[in-house]
Amino acid sequence: MLEKPKIIHLVLDVLKPHQPPLPEFASFVGELPGLTRVDISVVEMDEKTESLRIIVDGSSIDFEELKAHMARQGAVIHSVDKVIVE
Amino acid sequence: MLEKPKIIHLVLDVLKPHQPPLPEFASFVGELPGLTRVDISVVEMDEKTESLRIIVDGSSIDFEELKAHMARQGAVIHSVDKVIVE
Amino acid sequence: MLEKPKIIHLVLDVLKPHQPPLPEFASFVGELPGLTRVDISVVEMDEKTESLRIIVDGSSIDFEELKAHMARQGAVIHSVDKVIVE
Amino acid sequence: MLEKPKIIHLVLDVLKPHQPPLPEFASFVGELPGLTRVDISVVEMDEKTESLRIIVDGSSIDFEELKAHMARQGAVIHSVDKVIVE
Amino acid sequence: MLEKPKIIHLVLDVLKPHQPPLPEFASFVGELPGLTRVDISVVEMDEKTESLRIIVDGSSIDFEELKAHMARQGAVIHSVDKVIVE
Amino acid sequence: MLEKPKIIHLVLDVLKPHQPPLPEFASFVGELPGLTRVDISVVEMDEKTESLRIIVDGSSIDFEELKAHMARQGAVIHSVDKVIVE
Amino acid sequence: MLEKPKIIHLVLDVLKPHQPPLPEFASFVGELPGLTRVDISVVEMDEKTESLRIIVDGSSIDFEELKAHMARQGAVIHSVDKVIVE
Repeated sequence: MLEKPKIIHLVLDVLKPHQPPLPEFASFVGELPGLTRVDISVVEMDEKTESLRIIVDGSSIDFEELKAHMARQGAVIHSVDKVIVE
Repeated sequence: MLEKPKIIHLVLDVLKPHQPPLPEFASFVGELPGLTRVDISVVEMDEKTESLRIIVDGSSIDFEELKAHMARQGAVIHSVDKVIVE
Repeated sequence: MLEKPKIIHLVLDVLKPHQPPLPEFASFVGELPGLTRVDISVVEMDEKTESLRIIVDGSSIDFEELKAHMARQGAVIHSVDKVIVE
Repeated sequence: MLEKPKIIHLVLDVLKPHQPPLPEFASFVGELPGLTRVDISVVEMDEKTESLRIIVDGSSIDFEELKAHMARQGAVIHSVDKVIVE
Repeated sequence: MLEKPKIIHLVLDVLKPHQPPLPEFASFVGELPGLTRVDISVVEMDEKTESLRIIVDGSSIDFEELKAHMARQGAVIHSVDKVIVE
Repeated sequence: MLEKPKIIHLVLDVLKPHQPPLPEFASFVGELPGLTRVDISVVEMDEKTESLRIIVDGSSIDFEELKAHMARQGAVIHSVDKVIVE
Repeated sequence: MLEKPKIIHLVLDVLKPHQPPLPEFASFVGELPGLTRVDISVVEMDEKTESLRIIVDGSSIDFEELKAHMARQGAVIHSVDKVIVE
């Protein structure tokens, strides 16, 4: 790897308020440059929040930007469970 | 993703009255533009309703339209369990 | 889906008397137009009937015709467990 | 299916005396026209008989002939567990 | 199958003394004409013998010859668990 | 293998302080020459450290260099669970 | 198999002292002619030794040489669990 290694895959635990609904939130996340696919599954529903498992693929994912982008919708990255770098 | 990200895959929990029967309902759902495949499995049968797991694939799925379309047959989306955006 | 969506896959629970025997019944079902494959497995054997899981594939399956066709051999579709429409 | 549907796959429970031994019996079954493959597994061994699970593939399998053919070696088809017709 | 059906696959339970060691025994079995692959796994080790599961593939396997061949090393075919004929 | 065999795959148990965060650490590991992919999963989170399972692929991985490289971020290789050499 | 059958795959249980470390040991094993891949997983760690499961692939593996080669590093083949010959 002579070039700077790039994050191509992330698995995240995310906590998000019920609003916006999942399809809208997924579309919003997908607007971030460098992402090619966003796969969101609901893990648990609580009264005010939902726990999501988000798998993000891309050619080059900027983690800090992704974090800030999600925060605009009130979603918090609770943990990073997997990172693949190439 | 310079273009607007598109929903290409949805997994839904849906509650539907026994009428119309499943094959007819599946054909009805499949009439919505932007869908290429509708896969419906019965999860549970109650006296008046049936719980369905519906997997929808398409090139660009409009969630709000899909919701309104199903409602015309009395079917209610109970939860969105998975969304994939590309 | 501009054209009318077509049923291409059905999973059925079917109850059938012991006669005709399974190979003959499967051939009979397969005579229906629009079907390309009929896969029948025995789920349970009772004294007078057998419970079958029938998976039907086709380019365009007419459910009502399939139902009527099976009824000619005394077989009753007990439930539709899965439908795929394309 | 305009042409007559053909049985291409059968799963059978068969009871057979210990003689002839399995390799010889499998070769004997395979001599029937229309068969391309015979896969026999031993399920249980009793004092006088062995229970076999026989999977037969072919381009067009005549079930009645197969039954009569096996009977010549004392083997009895106990049940038909799966039929695929194309 | 107009030509004589051929055994192409056998699964055998074999009991063999500890000598010769497994790699040598496998090479010895593989010397038999008509075989293309011999796959031997140890199932159990006793004080004087080892139980082997032997999977033999070939274009045309002569079972009687295989039995006699193994016997030359003291190995006894305890049972034939699977036969495939084509 | 006439040439010197090369390590192409390693599975490691690694203990690392919470800082730097996982995406940053993965990118750092990926900067080492000879690596083509770094896959890090979190196994356990403690108060001060996290246990990681790191799978490293490359055309030729220098284990001693990898160890020294990770140590610069306070990460310790606890055990090597798998090595593939070609 | 007109030519002499060749061992192409071996699964071994091996006991080895902690020194040399696994990456170094794997590279050492891989130096033996006729081997194309060495895959070593740790099964158990004791105070003085480690139990390894070693999968060796090659075009033609000489078992006796492999045994002698490993012994030079103090590693003992405890059992041969699988052999494939072609």
